[in-house]
Amino acid sequence: MENRTEISDLGEFGLIDHLTKNFEIRNASTILGIGDDAAVIDHFGKQTVVSTDMLVEGVHFDLMYTPLRHLGYKSVIVNLSDIYAMNATPTQITMNIAFSNRFSVEALDEFYEGVFAACEKYNVDLIGGDTTSSNKGFIISVTAIGEITPGKAVKRSGAQPGDLLCVSGFLGGAFLGLTILEREKKIYLESPGVQPDLEEQQYIVGRMLKPEARKDIIEFFEQQNIVPTSMMDVSDGLSSETLHICKQSMVGCKIYEDKIPIHDDAKQFAYKLELDPTACALSGGEDYELLFTIPQSEHDKIVLNEEISVIGYLTDIEEGVHIITKGGSTHKLTAQGWNAFAQ
Amino acid sequence: MENRTEISDLGEFGLIDHLTKNFEIRNASTILGIGDDAAVIDHFGKQTVVSTDMLVEGVHFDLMYTPLRHLGYKSVIVNLSDIYAMNATPTQITMNIAFSNRFSVEALDEFYEGVFAACEKYNVDLIGGDTTSSNKGFIISVTAIGEITPGKAVKRSGAQPGDLLCVSGFLGGAFLGLTILEREKKIYLESPGVQPDLEEQQYIVGRMLKPEARKDIIEFFEQQNIVPTSMMDVSDGLSSETLHICKQSMVGCKIYEDKIPIHDDAKQFAYKLELDPTACALSGGEDYELLFTIPQSEHDKIVLNEEISVIGYLTDIEEGVHIITKGGSTHKLTAQGWNAFAQ
Repeated sequence: MENRTEISDLGEFGLIDHLTKNFEIRNASTILGIGDDAAVIDHFGKQTVVSTDMLVEGVHFDLMYTPLRHLGYKSVIVNLSDIYAMNATPTQITMNIAFSNRFSVEALDEFYEGVFAACEKYNVDLIGGDTTSSNKGFIISVTAIGEITPGKAVKRSGAQPGDLLCVSGFLGGAFLGLTILEREKKIYLESPGVQPDLEEQQYIVGRMLKPEARKDIIEFFEQQNIVPTSMMDVSDGLSSETLHICKQSMVGCKIYEDKIPIHDDAKQFAYKLELDPTACALSGGEDYELLFTIPQSEHDKIVLNEEISVIGYLTDIEEGVHIITKGGSTHKLTAQGWNAFAQ
Repeated sequence: MENRTEISDLGEFGLIDHLTKNFEIRNASTILGIGDDAAVIDHFGKQTVVSTDMLVEGVHFDLMYTPLRHLGYKSVIVNLSDIYAMNATPTQITMNIAFSNRFSVEALDEFYEGVFAACEKYNVDLIGGDTTSSNKGFIISVTAIGEITPGKAVKRSGAQPGDLLCVSGFLGGAFLGLTILEREKKIYLESPGVQPDLEEQQYIVGRMLKPEARKDIIEFFEQQNIVPTSMMDVSDGLSSETLHICKQSMVGCKIYEDKIPIHDDAKQFAYKLELDPTACALSGGEDYELLFTIPQSEHDKIVLNEEISVIGYLTDIEEGVHIITKGGSTHKLTAQGWNAFAQ
């Protein structure tokens, strides 16, 4: 970076002014945005949907291979994805960040460029936030607010036996992107002269560093007058999310391995590393696709949408949660649990 | 602490279940709380007010003298205070926390006891949150949501020349509480055998460790049909907040030193340390009182409320922002800027 402005040259309010000066309000429901004790939102006749997430350097991201602009973008996306997973439309976000003085104003500008790009693309207003110092690392906390017509919110608990289990897009790519980034980081640390070779893996690297939220699927539901019986976004992996829906809906499930959508580029790279692409889809996280269930009677409505795959169906709870492999054998599905504290 | 359960024994979802199992919904507007991708709030005919804050260990609090229960309580209060400062009623909060594995489940329970106590006292629902690991320290990010009748939100920018400048409660106490806690910490670190002597300073220590938000003042406004012309909460000190209101309202101000409300216990302790109590009120933060302006015509309505002091009046912007001392001399008001990054 050519310029380096110290945060202390601006002060907190100078910094907030600096970071938000080009930000315009997009939603009529945003009555008052940044600059007061709180923001004011008008949601007459609609219900408000709220979601929040925290991203911690060294736990959720590695700045060695994550450009700050991408990090800003992704911080917004992961929250919008939760709002879409309720079948709602995100309208506002608040963003808190804590960072040590190793970050310059230019670095924060890069981060906010990504934040603003995501807000613009998804038509969302940034309405507030706190910027503070940390002793170590970069910490991001985002709260997303959305609106929904009463009665249209889709929970995780509404799936019924006989419903179809569907997923948007492709799975497993983000995990494979992370794998190559970690591999290149290791090589770089051992031999700093070697430049990383990521050109051939743009798809999976992009899935990891710059995910998108499935706004298009929610819009498709509205056009087709579909209300899924249950839905959630795939942040921890297909296994874990399927088990959530089954547990909260008190149903069982059968998933067909050959129906799980995996992008060719992801498959190729998995084979190269001698990884099973299906395992990457089941246990790898951060794809931010939508996993949802619909009654069989809605099948005809989704069959022409190439972005949606039917991967299985729901059963009575007694039948458990299983995957049927390409070879025809049946295995119980288990989640690779969240275990950031086990180390 | 007698029991120590490792976080990893529970896992993330076990932990969330554990922490939230006794939490009940209080507001009819809370349609869906914790446990899905996002929460759903119904605000028919009302506007939604949103505020967010981040608290970082070592920057905003010191766990050496901050009991976790108090920290949980205060984390909620500082956000509710921002909602009240809009003349709104807080209804929901989301809470994200990141913590290293030096914290046990019992430690988090203590923290959440404080969170729940604040939610109960202020009639607020905890509707979501993220718990994650950090490499170092404890980080808290809270977003508070409130509701307000359209047209009733009070910004910082509506003060008019001639309006009265008013403040609730007492100022400077929290800063003096912090001063004694820092002093006792230093003594303890130098001679670990010496027990801290805080008995005589319960008032100022309480102001620092367990602040309250001024719900009562907002309720009083409603009863008396008062809508302040501007308002904010005192988190950075009276000087800084007065300058904010004057800048955003484009007015000047005169404050009378002898009108600034300072509690006797705070005064006594300030004299003991040879500190000027007025300076503590002007520059010490974290009192979480409400600073607001009202037209002179409303004076009769507030005069009988002993919790409200009139400390000055607003002028044209050309006259600047000044304090008139007890001795009758006039000084320009300056803010002790926020400078956590300057070290």
